[in-house]
Amino acid sequence: MTYKILSISRRTRKTPFTPRVEAAGVKGYTVYNHMLLPTIFESNEADYWSLCQDVQVWDVSCERQIEVSGPDSERLIQLMTPRDISQAVIGQGLYAPLCDENGAIINDPVLIKFAADDWWISIADSDVRLWARGLAQGSGLDVKIREASIWPLAVQGPKAEELVTRVFGNEVPGIRFFRSKMLEFRGKAMMVMRSGYSKQGGFEIYLNDADLAEPLWDELFAQGQDLNVRAGGPNLIERIESGLLSYGNDMNFNHNPFECGLDAFIDLDADIESMSLPALRAIKGRHVHQLVGIVFDQPVEFDDFRVEADGEAVGDVRSQVWSPRYEKFLTMVMMKREFLRENTSVTIDNNIGKIVDLPFDFDAIA
Amino acid sequence: MTYKILSISRRTRKTPFTPRVEAAGVKGYTVYNHMLLPTIFESNEADYWSLCQDVQVWDVSCERQIEVSGPDSERLIQLMTPRDISQAVIGQGLYAPLCDENGAIINDPVLIKFAADDWWISIADSDVRLWARGLAQGSGLDVKIREASIWPLAVQGPKAEELVTRVFGNEVPGIRFFRSKMLEFRGKAMMVMRSGYSKQGGFEIYLNDADLAEPLWDELFAQGQDLNVRAGGPNLIERIESGLLSYGNDMNFNHNPFECGLDAFIDLDADIESMSLPALRAIKGRHVHQLVGIVFDQPVEFDDFRVEADGEAVGDVRSQVWSPRYEKFLTMVMMKREFLRENTSVTIDNNIGKIVDLPFDFDAIA
Repeated sequence: MTYKILSISRRTRKTPFTPRVEAAGVKGYTVYNHMLLPTIFESNEADYWSLCQDVQVWDVSCERQIEVSGPDSERLIQLMTPRDISQAVIGQGLYAPLCDENGAIINDPVLIKFAADDWWISIADSDVRLWARGLAQGSGLDVKIREASIWPLAVQGPKAEELVTRVFGNEVPGIRFFRSKMLEFRGKAMMVMRSGYSKQGGFEIYLNDADLAEPLWDELFAQGQDLNVRAGGPNLIERIESGLLSYGNDMNFNHNPFECGLDAFIDLDADIESMSLPALRAIKGRHVHQLVGIVFDQPVEFDDFRVEADGEAVGDVRSQVWSPRYEKFLTMVMMKREFLRENTSVTIDNNIGKIVDLPFDFDAIA
Repeated sequence: MTYKILSISRRTRKTPFTPRVEAAGVKGYTVYNHMLLPTIFESNEADYWSLCQDVQVWDVSCERQIEVSGPDSERLIQLMTPRDISQAVIGQGLYAPLCDENGAIINDPVLIKFAADDWWISIADSDVRLWARGLAQGSGLDVKIREASIWPLAVQGPKAEELVTRVFGNEVPGIRFFRSKMLEFRGKAMMVMRSGYSKQGGFEIYLNDADLAEPLWDELFAQGQDLNVRAGGPNLIERIESGLLSYGNDMNFNHNPFECGLDAFIDLDADIESMSLPALRAIKGRHVHQLVGIVFDQPVEFDDFRVEADGEAVGDVRSQVWSPRYEKFLTMVMMKREFLRENTSVTIDNNIGKIVDLPFDFDAIA
């Protein structure tokens, strides 16, 4: 498939950072939560090295914050996720799959306990707001649910801590992973969390005043000049190398969390009221697919994303990229577990692919 | 904004028609219901004339069908819409806004009564499936809800009836607007409805077998050669000229149906159990905005989509296009009703825009 133009309209929403993203020379977008997500500035590979070596600023406004507030807010959130959220502290983020009554994944957000009775669901690409509202309305829960006017801006890369400290002050280095502090920019306090969709380290700034979007962007670029700061976005190479899952790509509403290796985020034995737990307890160990990596020495072409063995479809390629660092072709594939029990490789067009667990362990692969 | 590349992945889903769409030289897509929607082949304007003069085939698979089946299916659908659906007959389509308990628009689908206790919601761009599942789960309704494996293909334009008749037979001309018949292609019966997102006439074929996608496409092109059949898609010029609303563009979850002129689809006095009716009865006549057209003699540039009068924002431009047929710049604007009471025009950069009702009445405008 050659490059195609994205038709942009009000439906593919702009963000308060879009003017700066455009000025920075964005070449490509995707659409995420009905909003523009910048994907490419110089090129996938050039953006990758900048992210891994220096620091980037990402407009991830499309990580919409679904705010659930009111006396039943924690009850509703717990209903939606099989992860036990009862021990969360204010300002903490929790990666947590949301699952329906069949155990199918609806979304894999970061849940943020913003205050007592005030949770933010920092969503991946599906309308969690609608599910939450339907559940609340149907169950008569006392909550308010809205898409909050919050515009996350990620600062990612090895020099991110230095840059965010320059802009938000000396409390920044003390923020632990998935914890946050309310810090000021131009007199306005906003949440700054150590988090982000890369493994290069960094922060997400939950901008709560659209008028400060361009000043904040400009300040990060002014302060980051000697750090080689660049505009960027979630990078396909980096996120696959790091084994970061992408909802809609590596998993969707046809999958359950066990198939995606998310077992650690399911509290099967917790005494909590979560609508998916009965189904998940029944599925555990009996799921049909498993998301794995398959590593090739050179790029291979799949026919309609199919991994075939002896003429039979045994897997569905969900993500794929050439890694310039490891010089391997990395794929994330939803494979039949039955096939995995007896095979450690597949052959596509005479290229042998080594089947590995995720995230990729490059020491073991090399 | 200059043209940008769309980053395509599994998350921006392909359709069974995508290989043919690509072969037909698609230049641009948008993303709609997490799926590729072809938007441009030759150019917006060339595509427009082809649609208005001949016949086009559109891959509108992104009109996902949310199938609600089971004993409580009609009850759930009625709960979601303020339009009375009790008189619908099998095979009928009903354009109907879906509204939440505050009267806000969740989506504006075509509801299709496919069979007794089997409804299809042919959705615009939001995850209605999640809302429906939340409501059903919360309320304990006995329904099954799934995204069905249906891939709508639209045939639109003045020669559409001729083409669809050639492919599906002589029962086609007898199909009335928003009615359908089950007709066969290659021995497989599928729903063919007189409908589609243009005012040029035509049909939507609800393909129910992905393996027949390319054969069906090919047959339409083979039979339509002398009709100048072309690949197309919802056309920005045609749909705005025709006053067809687009969810996410002209309205979204911040609006109610009165603001969008959808009064005719709200049965305020019906004795039905619809969650939005109490709110809509209270809002009626007291809504703050109204979607109108504003017509200029030449293109104008809005600052951040704002319509200003005396330095104050009085409207929000939702859609805009140059009409090559009428040589007017057509905008669809969510205006403050207070302003509309005393004004019939606005001036933007010395260009006077005439405020008109939707759909545009070009005899009156000229």
